[in-house]
Amino acid sequence: MPSILVFGHKNPDNDAISAAIGYAYLKNELAKKNGEDVTYEAVRLGGLPPETEWILSENGIETPRLIEGVGEGDKVILVDHSEALQSAEGLENAEIVEIIDHHRLGGLTTAQPLRYNAMPVGSTCAIVAREFGIEGIEMPKAIAAVLLGAMLTDTVIMKSPTTTNFDRDIIAKTAEFVGVDPVEYGMSIFKCRSNPAELPVDKIVNADAKEFELSNGNKVYIGQFETVDLQAVLGREAEIREAIKALVAEKGYQFVLFFATDILAEGSQFICEGDTEFVNKVFGIDVTGKSVWMPGVLSRKKQVAAPILAA
Amino acid sequence: MPSILVFGHKNPDNDAISAAIGYAYLKNELAKKNGEDVTYEAVRLGGLPPETEWILSENGIETPRLIEGVGEGDKVILVDHSEALQSAEGLENAEIVEIIDHHRLGGLTTAQPLRYNAMPVGSTCAIVAREFGIEGIEMPKAIAAVLLGAMLTDTVIMKSPTTTNFDRDIIAKTAEFVGVDPVEYGMSIFKCRSNPAELPVDKIVNADAKEFELSNGNKVYIGQFETVDLQAVLGREAEIREAIKALVAEKGYQFVLFFATDILAEGSQFICEGDTEFVNKVFGIDVTGKSVWMPGVLSRKKQVAAPILAA
Ligand SMILES: [Mn+2]
Ligand SMILES: [Mn+2]
Repeated sequence: MPSILVFGHKNPDNDAISAAIGYAYLKNELAKKNGEDVTYEAVRLGGLPPETEWILSENGIETPRLIEGVGEGDKVILVDHSEALQSAEGLENAEIVEIIDHHRLGGLTTAQPLRYNAMPVGSTCAIVAREFGIEGIEMPKAIAAVLLGAMLTDTVIMKSPTTTNFDRDIIAKTAEFVGVDPVEYGMSIFKCRSNPAELPVDKIVNADAKEFELSNGNKVYIGQFETVDLQAVLGREAEIREAIKALVAEKGYQFVLFFATDILAEGSQFICEGDTEFVNKVFGIDVTGKSVWMPGVLSRKKQVAAPILAA
Repeated sequence: MPSILVFGHKNPDNDAISAAIGYAYLKNELAKKNGEDVTYEAVRLGGLPPETEWILSENGIETPRLIEGVGEGDKVILVDHSEALQSAEGLENAEIVEIIDHHRLGGLTTAQPLRYNAMPVGSTCAIVAREFGIEGIEMPKAIAAVLLGAMLTDTVIMKSPTTTNFDRDIIAKTAEFVGVDPVEYGMSIFKCRSNPAELPVDKIVNADAKEFELSNGNKVYIGQFETVDLQAVLGREAEIREAIKALVAEKGYQFVLFFATDILAEGSQFICEGDTEFVNKVFGIDVTGKSVWMPGVLSRKKQVAAPILAA
């Protein structure tokens, strides 16, 4: 039976993995309902975040298979991203049949028409949950718990400015169905992330990091680490700085911007190496050689990547 | 009150105009329902096709305003296209807030997340009609008749290979609601197109024509004229050839491919000027200096543009 691969971006976060699991489940149920001879497999492009590991094991859901890349003859569905730089190696040789996403339009082209379902909302998992309703497919409680978890991590428990009324509605409904309080459930997910004082530094720097291309053609790397213990992260600033300096040198990035987001204090600490002047100009700050606290900055997409890409 | 412009591609066909009218209506009703202080205006980038003129006047719907282009500060919704080359002048300075389309992904980028709703189906108007159902907005009969008309022209009365079961379903339901037989209604729409023996030649050549960019960076122009009287079109082959030769010279296209589609005989006659060798290779034909009958070719997107862009 032909199989279609469903995957989120490289360096997957909880939303990327959970959306692939939820959407592959929905598409398999739809295929059965319509008597179509095709299966959908959720796969992943990188390691599981600790909170995802916990949620999947709590709900008895198998970890998606790790793939190295895709190639000629593969049919794929991209979730939670729409940029080649953030996607599987060899994507240019595969056929993209669907994209389901909540990011900016990333410049991909296809030869054939496709299903593209993007909404400017807090998480891809909220869009996936909406599709269950539209298609009239029943959502098992385990899938609902997984989708809810990612709605809460991607919106930083509804504190991120990317959170819309649509997100709040669908989080409330899904939490009721699962039988949990959304804020409590969200806090238990964030707490199960490892202690930042003990994590290897590359797990902090690459926890949720993506490459972007500036309009001048140069690449930059922007990474975020969400935490309930900012001081433990800042205690390792020297190590973090060494690690991102090495990334600038190895990968030729114009700059690497790392920021640790304190989800309780609702702000982020910026650490930058490379062409820090670019970042200084965009944000009107001085992050050259020192870290800077940015109150209210919670969203990489809306508050960090967007102004950098628009500059 | 802020106004958002809704428009289809340049050289608008019936689907481009009708989708803009239907979607602007839906968005205005949704805004009223949600108490949002915004209006949506359907506009157009070119002249009305004759069948659209007839359908709008039959249903008492105002002709969308013609605009020259868009600019800084404009918020826009693109319907029935997603390529800059086919869109409004100045699009790069406007903010794209939504795209609703049934074509390939055309390489646009945005700084912010947006609503992107594309499906690989026969017409944009079918996707617009589906949205009325999802959003629970009542469709007036006049809007239904306009959307139905475009579902029938874009699928060549369901004969085009782009027609899916989704299209057939929604055409049947909409026709029942409007109170017409879909095939009869479709034939009456195609018949109201002008007599190809009497049309100015540029109305034939540019009836439904679009620019595309090849992977080598060169531009090509592919135009289709659907007719129930192929002989009348072919009687003007010499004039058509002169007109497209002039386009190659003026615009620097690698080639211009014009094809007249006989919707009854279900095939198309190709006429090409410029680098005809490219077209010969893609289709395994010899169209250099002579026109060629291509049985079964009805869809520019799926059967003509796709193989050219993939070459
Ligand atoms: Mn996400
Ligand atoms: Mn169309």
